[in-house]
Amino acid sequence: MLKRKLRMGMIGGGPGSFIGNIHRIAARLDGEIELVCGAFSSDPKRSSETGQELYLSHDRVYGTYKEMLEKEAAVDENTRMDLVSIVTPNHLHFEPAKLAFEKGFHVVLDKPMTFDLAQAAALKKLVTSSGKQLCITYTYTGYPMVKEARQQVLSKKFGKIRKVLVEYPQGWLSDLIEAGGQKQASWRTDPNQSGQAGTIGDIGVHAFNLAEYISGLEVTELCAEVNTVVEKRKLDDDSGILLRFDNGATGILIASQVATGEENNIRIRVYGEKGGLEWQQADSNSLIIKWADKPVEIWRAGSPYLSDAAKQNTRTPPGHPEGWIEAFANHYRNFAKFIRSGQKNIDINSDFPDVEQGYRGMLFIEKAILGGRSEEKWIRL
Amino acid sequence: MLKRKLRMGMIGGGPGSFIGNIHRIAARLDGEIELVCGAFSSDPKRSSETGQELYLSHDRVYGTYKEMLEKEAAVDENTRMDLVSIVTPNHLHFEPAKLAFEKGFHVVLDKPMTFDLAQAAALKKLVTSSGKQLCITYTYTGYPMVKEARQQVLSKKFGKIRKVLVEYPQGWLSDLIEAGGQKQASWRTDPNQSGQAGTIGDIGVHAFNLAEYISGLEVTELCAEVNTVVEKRKLDDDSGILLRFDNGATGILIASQVATGEENNIRIRVYGEKGGLEWQQADSNSLIIKWADKPVEIWRAGSPYLSDAAKQNTRTPPGHPEGWIEAFANHYRNFAKFIRSGQKNIDINSDFPDVEQGYRGMLFIEKAILGGRSEEKWIRL
Amino acid sequence: MLKRKLRMGMIGGGPGSFIGNIHRIAARLDGEIELVCGAFSSDPKRSSETGQELYLSHDRVYGTYKEMLEKEAAVDENTRMDLVSIVTPNHLHFEPAKLAFEKGFHVVLDKPMTFDLAQAAALKKLVTSSGKQLCITYTYTGYPMVKEARQQVLSKKFGKIRKVLVEYPQGWLSDLIEAGGQKQASWRTDPNQSGQAGTIGDIGVHAFNLAEYISGLEVTELCAEVNTVVEKRKLDDDSGILLRFDNGATGILIASQVATGEENNIRIRVYGEKGGLEWQQADSNSLIIKWADKPVEIWRAGSPYLSDAAKQNTRTPPGHPEGWIEAFANHYRNFAKFIRSGQKNIDINSDFPDVEQGYRGMLFIEKAILGGRSEEKWIRL
Amino acid sequence: MLKRKLRMGMIGGGPGSFIGNIHRIAARLDGEIELVCGAFSSDPKRSSETGQELYLSHDRVYGTYKEMLEKEAAVDENTRMDLVSIVTPNHLHFEPAKLAFEKGFHVVLDKPMTFDLAQAAALKKLVTSSGKQLCITYTYTGYPMVKEARQQVLSKKFGKIRKVLVEYPQGWLSDLIEAGGQKQASWRTDPNQSGQAGTIGDIGVHAFNLAEYISGLEVTELCAEVNTVVEKRKLDDDSGILLRFDNGATGILIASQVATGEENNIRIRVYGEKGGLEWQQADSNSLIIKWADKPVEIWRAGSPYLSDAAKQNTRTPPGHPEGWIEAFANHYRNFAKFIRSGQKNIDINSDFPDVEQGYRGMLFIEKAILGGRSEEKWIRL
Repeated sequence: MLKRKLRMGMIGGGPGSFIGNIHRIAARLDGEIELVCGAFSSDPKRSSETGQELYLSHDRVYGTYKEMLEKEAAVDENTRMDLVSIVTPNHLHFEPAKLAFEKGFHVVLDKPMTFDLAQAAALKKLVTSSGKQLCITYTYTGYPMVKEARQQVLSKKFGKIRKVLVEYPQGWLSDLIEAGGQKQASWRTDPNQSGQAGTIGDIGVHAFNLAEYISGLEVTELCAEVNTVVEKRKLDDDSGILLRFDNGATGILIASQVATGEENNIRIRVYGEKGGLEWQQADSNSLIIKWADKPVEIWRAGSPYLSDAAKQNTRTPPGHPEGWIEAFANHYRNFAKFIRSGQKNIDINSDFPDVEQGYRGMLFIEKAILGGRSEEKWIRL
Repeated sequence: MLKRKLRMGMIGGGPGSFIGNIHRIAARLDGEIELVCGAFSSDPKRSSETGQELYLSHDRVYGTYKEMLEKEAAVDENTRMDLVSIVTPNHLHFEPAKLAFEKGFHVVLDKPMTFDLAQAAALKKLVTSSGKQLCITYTYTGYPMVKEARQQVLSKKFGKIRKVLVEYPQGWLSDLIEAGGQKQASWRTDPNQSGQAGTIGDIGVHAFNLAEYISGLEVTELCAEVNTVVEKRKLDDDSGILLRFDNGATGILIASQVATGEENNIRIRVYGEKGGLEWQQADSNSLIIKWADKPVEIWRAGSPYLSDAAKQNTRTPPGHPEGWIEAFANHYRNFAKFIRSGQKNIDINSDFPDVEQGYRGMLFIEKAILGGRSEEKWIRL
Repeated sequence: MLKRKLRMGMIGGGPGSFIGNIHRIAARLDGEIELVCGAFSSDPKRSSETGQELYLSHDRVYGTYKEMLEKEAAVDENTRMDLVSIVTPNHLHFEPAKLAFEKGFHVVLDKPMTFDLAQAAALKKLVTSSGKQLCITYTYTGYPMVKEARQQVLSKKFGKIRKVLVEYPQGWLSDLIEAGGQKQASWRTDPNQSGQAGTIGDIGVHAFNLAEYISGLEVTELCAEVNTVVEKRKLDDDSGILLRFDNGATGILIASQVATGEENNIRIRVYGEKGGLEWQQADSNSLIIKWADKPVEIWRAGSPYLSDAAKQNTRTPPGHPEGWIEAFANHYRNFAKFIRSGQKNIDINSDFPDVEQGYRGMLFIEKAILGGRSEEKWIRL
Repeated sequence: MLKRKLRMGMIGGGPGSFIGNIHRIAARLDGEIELVCGAFSSDPKRSSETGQELYLSHDRVYGTYKEMLEKEAAVDENTRMDLVSIVTPNHLHFEPAKLAFEKGFHVVLDKPMTFDLAQAAALKKLVTSSGKQLCITYTYTGYPMVKEARQQVLSKKFGKIRKVLVEYPQGWLSDLIEAGGQKQASWRTDPNQSGQAGTIGDIGVHAFNLAEYISGLEVTELCAEVNTVVEKRKLDDDSGILLRFDNGATGILIASQVATGEENNIRIRVYGEKGGLEWQQADSNSLIIKWADKPVEIWRAGSPYLSDAAKQNTRTPPGHPEGWIEAFANHYRNFAKFIRSGQKNIDINSDFPDVEQGYRGMLFIEKAILGGRSEEKWIRL
């Protein structure tokens, strides 16, 4: 085991980036990873500006990701970075990730994994052959009570799962704010940067991943309505999707960015024969368990009665809330632990979303968009 | 205006009935209506038993609804009932209602309005020609904060409505309890008593009515998955339905009776261009208003700042909760006020669900069941 | 057992009265009691006006309570009222109640029981000697989940009770609204009508009663700060009181009517050695149970797993909320059942607040006001 | 301005420490501070063990705080630490802090500031004369919505403040767990390590600080009941305290560690003439604003409409919850910003608790314990 912090580089996350800073906080939080280098912007001046704000050594701040990956691969192993975090828009995921694997680095990649499904398939092969590992930051499965939910479903305490309701309502795209150049909105609604999907790729994919993660099931078919509500918008901003799972269960997935006034309350409910569960980000430290004939239960993060999977992803005692940043940090911490361990298999109690989850997300995007355009009712995944 | 209580008869609501008692409480609560007679069961002995429990005069308790309607029509006008409340299973709605109108009585009818759509069309005609009025007890639109929600949408403060999410999850049919003879389950899952729909007709129709009532819109198309989850059940017990409205808005309706552990938390969210609202029965005295750029607001029943429609359907000051029974009672109170007034038009501040709403509910049931069986994606209403 | 509705008269509750109408609804709701007569106002014209609105027979509407009690005592027993409900301001509780008992009627009396402690002691004697019964409408102990809370504490599942936190914050007296003649405020802040206490007598006494009812303990000492916050107000409008109970437990009681923006969220928390409970009116159909080492539990009104005491005071299935009016109605229903039964002892599953609880409330008022004025820290009850 | 991370040392926080790790995460989170050295335990072996886990250079891990402060003061200024974080039990606060100031370091100190009031007075003098700054980690005032609450009160939108209700209920000391050697319980209930107060010093002081911070008022008098509920415990574990503030407002402070089943839900309500506010850790990203005659408002962390004080202490958009660790980190980030700036005055939008707040906390502890033992009702602060 390495007796030092892992060394990380970052691609993207320059001035004006929102998610870049969150990744940096998440990576830094547990003291297992230190940021040592970066290509924060394709504009070298802006890249340098961010490097200075982060107190990085001038000679480890690069103008392009290629330069960074090549130079870092060449430096001595006592200095060289171990992993790279890629936080660029979707169209700039695949090429840097590909090169990183070729140069022998582990990769953290923001969701959705790639620009399109073909790239996803290619990346899946690449990861397998590289001997390195990929972590996709589907943030919400980093929450301890989401991990607890998965454990409880897998334990079969609810019996066979019958119904999954998952939703991610946001309201921030209720107006055509991309017209005014709002940075977050601009690339997400641009087919050249985001891919064929807008809302489906931005948050629908989170809902899809959460549903499959907690239920332990796979979606096999979907029936989708995918809308562009705001005039002149170039991609979808709203959807309602009926789901069918591989065990015969059904589900409903709602993802909208024109649900005016909504923040980020991703929420899931799963019902089995004997009981059900509910989790939502607005009350992220609680897991609600419901029974046919017993009182409702509230399982609380940090409690001694939780599964190891929940316990090992918590830092505070019950009632001292952890949040979204800590969920993010769990992925980084678990990924670091995995890299340190040198193991091949991901520990169930310290898991993180892997390339397979990344690929399935891309598959969902492809099929949801297809379904939204189709007169056919059901589309197979 | 009549200077006395209105006199009501009841058809159904005998021993073992649940909803009959609720109707009686609701009718009685505001002191505007008194129960004077009833045909509580098709078994005269059981009808009589209920009559005694209700301290009714022995000679006003009947063995059949026909007997009651005929005899009551014949008694003198200082004694004769003014309206009849029909609380039987669905297959026993149309005939008694028809006869009641023919005999000159106003009618309160539990939902869904009839056994099938043809009966609904017939009843619609009948009401129009009778000069009497029909009240369908879609309970949830009796809540003051549901009326407030409707007023706020109609005021256009949210701009054009874009999205309606409505759900009614229950868990009490997670097992095949009809097999054990549970009375409420038995008739609701029996095609001969309930009609072609189970859950869709029992609670889906509530969700549908709530959505149209608050949004002020009409559903024009739907895409439905309708499931029978519990083996050996004869009717549907679960569904997910995509909706399209006449102004171009879309929606999602979820109705399930196998959402194990859920009680009766019917809930609706409506989003417009500028803001949105949320109401749920579990917090029935609050209406949540959300804005793009202002704090969330909680409007509270009983408050002085509410619309007249909300205020006139409340009895208590803010913080003294009213509930489901009072919502029910509002329909009775408003119906009584309407009858007393002798007016033709329903006052917007004292409204109740009429035959048109009853008919649309039946139309929804017909099309949802059709859609559930169809390979076609969209079904027109 | 009487095979007819009980007949009730009312003293007070004329034009402008708020609580009178609530009492009437509560008495009427379950169909066990009918209002047959009333002396609704000391102004015969106004009394008559209310009588007409209630569709009462003209000859049973009286100009004074004396007239009513005397005449009703004289009518034949097939017509005569059985009980009287007194809903006047505090200074008009004792005399009518006294006369009612002397004339052989059962009495429902709003809280606080009397104008002062001496009257309370006298009334206590009177009830005992009369052979009739008194019901004090401390509303909140009528809630099913409050009854459940009491049962759970009495079952000793929490071990010895150590701490009781009870609060009743209101904001409606934040301004000197009595100066503008607001009726509800005027008499409550007038020492000649309300007695020596304002807030303490109006809502503090509810909190006190709730604490003793659920905990099964008696307060033995208190240390009080009692304030008059709004200038020119004649009675207290705010307080904080430390409590000591007869088993060594301690508590804190907060009652304020200048907690601006608060509605009526009376709330109690009780902690024992092994766990604790929480109930509040804002979520009146839930009882929260907390444990040292297990998930939180939410026990829900209407559920099959509840105690008989809770079940027998509920009309609806879980998730169809009952509220404040139904809690009120439970007192009336249970009182009616008691009267019908002819029993001496109150059934634990159909209980109602009796004269002893009324007396202890008056004792609390006396001592809290004394404590508020005293430099002594602890005052014995 | 320093163009590098600030260098921090830590005293305490060795094996088994809970709060030490939280301080390290908080210091590390924003990338402004790096931990460079530590004296983590008075046992050099255990200190070294923690140093290794933190990947610290062996020669910067010390066996005693004295050794650390002396040696660090002597190293060159390109290496030397800038500030020291002291996370030991209360009896080991004063001496290390004193020496740190004497050696020219800034100090972060966990609450309560010192072992007794005399030490607090001495430390206050020392800070003033040292030219260095002290940050006391009263965690809860680090929350953005607590800062928002303070700004709103100071803006006078609620008018004069009349009532402050603050509570901190915990249940983890419901049993005599110190008897079993539980580390956190052992020192907190030991008069030799904790000082004269148990619960009052551990969490009462948080509640006190929160009340003074948000209200902008100072407590002038208190009336206290302070209990030791669990037999054989050496210090207090429960309390109820009446408060009087310098503007005439009153308040109630509840702090208990035997409220079985409670976690860490510190909560405050403040009422003024025109409205009130409510904040609680269980919903830390919301601030509830209540008005006499308008809908309740929920102000949400991360929203554009908030004050600068709130905005500058948030990292995520609304709905992505931040929590207790981020509140902690805000103190570190703001303290780092202050140190970098070289200013004398604390910026209102980047504030942190200073020595004066630390001193007032100690004054509260002294007087609350005195009051708890006194027969006198009111004790002046």
